[in-house]
Amino acid sequence: MLEITSAQNPRVAALRALRQAKGRAETGLFLAEGRKLCREAFEWAQVETLLVEKERLDEFSALTTRARDVLVVPARIMETVCETKTPQGVAAAVRIPAPLDAARAEGLVLALDGVQDPGNVGTMLRTAEAAGFSGALLSPACADVFAPKTVRATMGSVYRMPVWRGELAGALSALKERGFSVVSTELGGEDFFAALPGLKAPLALVIGSEGNGVTPAVRALSTHRLALPMAGHVESMNAAVAAGILMYSIGHR
Amino acid sequence: MLEITSAQNPRVAALRALRQAKGRAETGLFLAEGRKLCREAFEWAQVETLLVEKERLDEFSALTTRARDVLVVPARIMETVCETKTPQGVAAAVRIPAPLDAARAEGLVLALDGVQDPGNVGTMLRTAEAAGFSGALLSPACADVFAPKTVRATMGSVYRMPVWRGELAGALSALKERGFSVVSTELGGEDFFAALPGLKAPLALVIGSEGNGVTPAVRALSTHRLALPMAGHVESMNAAVAAGILMYSIGHR
Repeated sequence: MLEITSAQNPRVAALRALRQAKGRAETGLFLAEGRKLCREAFEWAQVETLLVEKERLDEFSALTTRARDVLVVPARIMETVCETKTPQGVAAAVRIPAPLDAARAEGLVLALDGVQDPGNVGTMLRTAEAAGFSGALLSPACADVFAPKTVRATMGSVYRMPVWRGELAGALSALKERGFSVVSTELGGEDFFAALPGLKAPLALVIGSEGNGVTPAVRALSTHRLALPMAGHVESMNAAVAAGILMYSIGHR
Repeated sequence: MLEITSAQNPRVAALRALRQAKGRAETGLFLAEGRKLCREAFEWAQVETLLVEKERLDEFSALTTRARDVLVVPARIMETVCETKTPQGVAAAVRIPAPLDAARAEGLVLALDGVQDPGNVGTMLRTAEAAGFSGALLSPACADVFAPKTVRATMGSVYRMPVWRGELAGALSALKERGFSVVSTELGGEDFFAALPGLKAPLALVIGSEGNGVTPAVRALSTHRLALPMAGHVESMNAAVAAGILMYSIGHR
């Protein structure tokens, strides 16, 4: 256990750098903030460093005893490392898990085609795990799964849902050749619930970007182009809610 | 059209007061911020006053010609009225619509039992309209439907979804006597999808608070206590996503 009192300390600066993509790429680590994410990090991932607020050391003794490397800092330094305005007194540098092997994906797979809001990406991964999906493919335009805000929104699913990031149309084409249905949604598409009885694994469910939907290349290769029916005079759904409805309906049809 | 250049002007102060419950209760008005909500206000509700940023008057001419009362202000005053950090140049004081008559509710009804986050309440109303629900009952512990953040999250459904606010257990008991099923969710409840074929209108779907779930009185009178099955190791779902899955599953079974 190492106590640090300077915000300029290089160990602290290294943790702070994990908030940026560059810091994560250079180290292969990401930042988990708060009690739940730190507790689950020990269960499901590899914790490199645990950062604990000095005044709350007792509260986190169950975590510090499991960590090889513990840094103890005052609250004012914890605040410079965490993105949350009121940090919960604990954070961890966690090893980025092995990516999804897209060529061996099975069952139900989520494909995010330019989903840009970190909260949406995180919530969709959380829902995907709950709905029984096996992993996620993300296009380069999507929010970074390992950015702090995304990580928090996953509520721990970031440790367990393998993700792959790259050129999405190519990856989906390869899945299609292996027998996957590729189901995308678009305004004016066929009624989702009418098509639902025919939607079976292996299947990739494509969620387009909040503003522009699915990209033309992905749309062109989709085996199904569906729309969630909307009653009343609703013009669009919240993206994370719509994705949840689609995933659970497919997972539990 | 009245141009105002002082942030202390009483007309401007009156609009600003609509951000608080007191200001809304005293006037029967609420504040709609941004292009979409103002446009839909003219379509679905009664606009008392339209507030437009002077530098963007041309952009909103289709709205100003429809309003009886237009106030024109510089951007710095618009910012003091709107809650959003980057206001879209237009806001409106809109009459609060007539409440849902709980005693005559029909079909599918949403009941929020202490949902506290304004974004969740707003998103749930938006999804409820899309899923074909006819209105919503809110317990007094819920976030205010007409607070600016809730209004924004409804994306316009606030104008079309009638809501009732009051002691929820009593209102649900009355619905039950009229033949409604009262479906609440709780951890460890019966599998929602197993029960789904038996869930028919008239029906009230109860969503509990984010932290504590459904209150004991409402739980006791529920005809069904169900749980969304969660695969993997997910401990809980995002509240608005879970509500969306439940509403769409019931609306489209």
